[in-house]
Amino acid sequence: MLLGIKAFAKLTTVPTGAILMPAEPLPLNRTSVEAAHKDIAPYIHRTPVLTSSAINVIASTPQSAEALLGTPWYGQSPAKPSFQLFFKCENFQKAGAFKTRGALFALSRLSDDELQNGVVTHSSGAARFELSFGYLTPVTGNHGQSLAYAAGMRNVPAYIVMPTISTPSKAAAALGYGANIVFSGSTTPERHAAAKEVIEKTGARYIPSSDHPDIILGQGTMALELEEQVKDLDANLDAAGLGRGRGLLDAVISPLGGGGMLAGIATALCGTGTRVFGSEPSFQGADDGRRGLAQGKRITSVATLTIAEGLRTPVGEVNWSVISDKSKVEGVYSVGEEEIKKAMKLLLERLKVFVEPSACVPMAVVLFDEDFRKECVRLNITRLGIVLSGGNTTVEAISKLFGTSQ
Amino acid sequence: MLLGIKAFAKLTTVPTGAILMPAEPLPLNRTSVEAAHKDIAPYIHRTPVLTSSAINVIASTPQSAEALLGTPWYGQSPAKPSFQLFFKCENFQKAGAFKTRGALFALSRLSDDELQNGVVTHSSGAARFELSFGYLTPVTGNHGQSLAYAAGMRNVPAYIVMPTISTPSKAAAALGYGANIVFSGSTTPERHAAAKEVIEKTGARYIPSSDHPDIILGQGTMALELEEQVKDLDANLDAAGLGRGRGLLDAVISPLGGGGMLAGIATALCGTGTRVFGSEPSFQGADDGRRGLAQGKRITSVATLTIAEGLRTPVGEVNWSVISDKSKVEGVYSVGEEEIKKAMKLLLERLKVFVEPSACVPMAVVLFDEDFRKECVRLNITRLGIVLSGGNTTVEAISKLFGTSQ
Repeated sequence: MLLGIKAFAKLTTVPTGAILMPAEPLPLNRTSVEAAHKDIAPYIHRTPVLTSSAINVIASTPQSAEALLGTPWYGQSPAKPSFQLFFKCENFQKAGAFKTRGALFALSRLSDDELQNGVVTHSSGAARFELSFGYLTPVTGNHGQSLAYAAGMRNVPAYIVMPTISTPSKAAAALGYGANIVFSGSTTPERHAAAKEVIEKTGARYIPSSDHPDIILGQGTMALELEEQVKDLDANLDAAGLGRGRGLLDAVISPLGGGGMLAGIATALCGTGTRVFGSEPSFQGADDGRRGLAQGKRITSVATLTIAEGLRTPVGEVNWSVISDKSKVEGVYSVGEEEIKKAMKLLLERLKVFVEPSACVPMAVVLFDEDFRKECVRLNITRLGIVLSGGNTTVEAISKLFGTSQ
Repeated sequence: MLLGIKAFAKLTTVPTGAILMPAEPLPLNRTSVEAAHKDIAPYIHRTPVLTSSAINVIASTPQSAEALLGTPWYGQSPAKPSFQLFFKCENFQKAGAFKTRGALFALSRLSDDELQNGVVTHSSGAARFELSFGYLTPVTGNHGQSLAYAAGMRNVPAYIVMPTISTPSKAAAALGYGANIVFSGSTTPERHAAAKEVIEKTGARYIPSSDHPDIILGQGTMALELEEQVKDLDANLDAAGLGRGRGLLDAVISPLGGGGMLAGIATALCGTGTRVFGSEPSFQGADDGRRGLAQGKRITSVATLTIAEGLRTPVGEVNWSVISDKSKVEGVYSVGEEEIKKAMKLLLERLKVFVEPSACVPMAVVLFDEDFRKECVRLNITRLGIVLSGGNTTVEAISKLFGTSQ
């Protein structure tokens, strides 16, 4: 039951012959994000916004000369920002990451008829699961898990294509949310072929993990919640006579991988006065967004093994149209692997949240990137929202990352 | 400036000559807990309540015969409970644990005059800090950290007595919240002597970590929030047509160490129809609460090195008067070290919260104690609140606990 490609034929990660999303995308503006939020709100967690006085103090302390040794800023006078940070905890989202928002909204735009044969996707990053309690814990591959959850809400089957090597096959049947696991080779053509086979056999509809207006709008819904939650926090403090806030956020910084989340946040906040920043790992060229902005052209291919596994992909084409719009995204900054690890340790131990490395990249920029810190001083950015994008990692992965001897 | 003991002369951990709390304690009832909440609410985090469908499924799955091998329940038909769990996340509380509630309320009961010379305390468990970002991260010793925060809110000095061996002395001055660290030997008499010396020198007032009506009432405030938050969660689902709740909790289970928290929750919930349970580690006799209830007499001394460091202390005298009242606490259950570790892994990886081992004991009881699970079936307990008491641990401690090879 092949219906042919309906829209977005240019998506580079779509298997040939895929059945896609509705042909008429919604406009990329705040009104559409509000509509998306209304649709998906009952099925997602309104994830909490956490604050930490200790982390505010640490982030507002100028870096020492010693800390800047070996960086481009060595010898310069360090920035003296004053931060009041608000953490939007999407690690507590259904299926453990923000991607559930986009997957739910993408499916809400399709009729029961259109969904009757189920949905299929593959992750461009390797999906990896580990066995725990007889259930599989997703380590990466958030989109697959999120799509399985969203399909479950619509009572339709989900087919998740993932590399054979990365999953304990004997346990595959136990995958939470009842998805069907389809194994493929680990290369992109192999994954495409496996997804295409599923589509041809089942008539399932292909749902991309990123780079589609519906996905962008879905991810952007977190920004609407963050705005409201910061106002509520301020109102509570005001009522107690302890208020120091103005109810508004000066800026938000999010991770940037494929770009759906950053594009969504920027779409939601455009025109509100809240600036939007992106953050990437710099390891092995993973900072394709930052480099693309510098050269005025999207970078379409990246090969990196950064520990921020969710951010290994290049920015998608639709996402790029938003992210490269200076009126929407103020700038993108990048940090090294050690900075990400340090930020992760701080978030684990001080904010007490279990987060994956990708989620720690914005915090690393806030702590260590002098260009960003100076820009915050220049633009008078104090009240800053930080998106903790997901928590899909394991105790073993964290032990390995930090070693036992440290 | 020694004023002599004003009240609670029987407190076993009070240094001789200590300046204590107000002579007239508030009655131990829900009205007092409500008054306490009104006093401290502006200074604490209203910590979020999290839920997880995945954990509900896991906790509601009967244990396999294999899993019961070597337990007293081997060969028995496993319980088939049906849980909808609500996690009250006190790991996100100011200073990383619930103890901030009690410390704040204890200080709010004292006038500026009474507090003019500051406050002092020592932990009966070893306080241990690790250096991170130039700041000390508390690993145990929650009360000391919480008292330092509370003292900071009142602009008075805090003196925290802790064993020399457990703190990197070169970093002690960096302790967050500006407390004064006073080193002592590691035995109880040595800690008492050090606290007494502080009192004699400074006139500081001794604030116990537990076993005082004001502390009990302060800790109990979390139960009032939990009740309201569960109602709010249900109301949101009802509005979306997805409601399955009745707005009420059938029961709450909390860790039991010194007993201030369990006594506080039981005081807050008495008469509401919500049952209250306690949970302890069983390792090396740490289940003194459970054993005391069985023999009808408080056990006053415990020597255990359970990984649940916060629960190594025996139940205090005032706390015992509440906990041993069957109309207030329904029962106390205990679990082994391996069960605590398994629960911890589940909470880290699935709920995505960074919690200390002590905080994982109630989850371990829910997952593994067949007596508790059968009691829940018998009493028709489905909607269960679980208190995650604190998150003061480190990445290194977790790596050590789980090893890198697992």
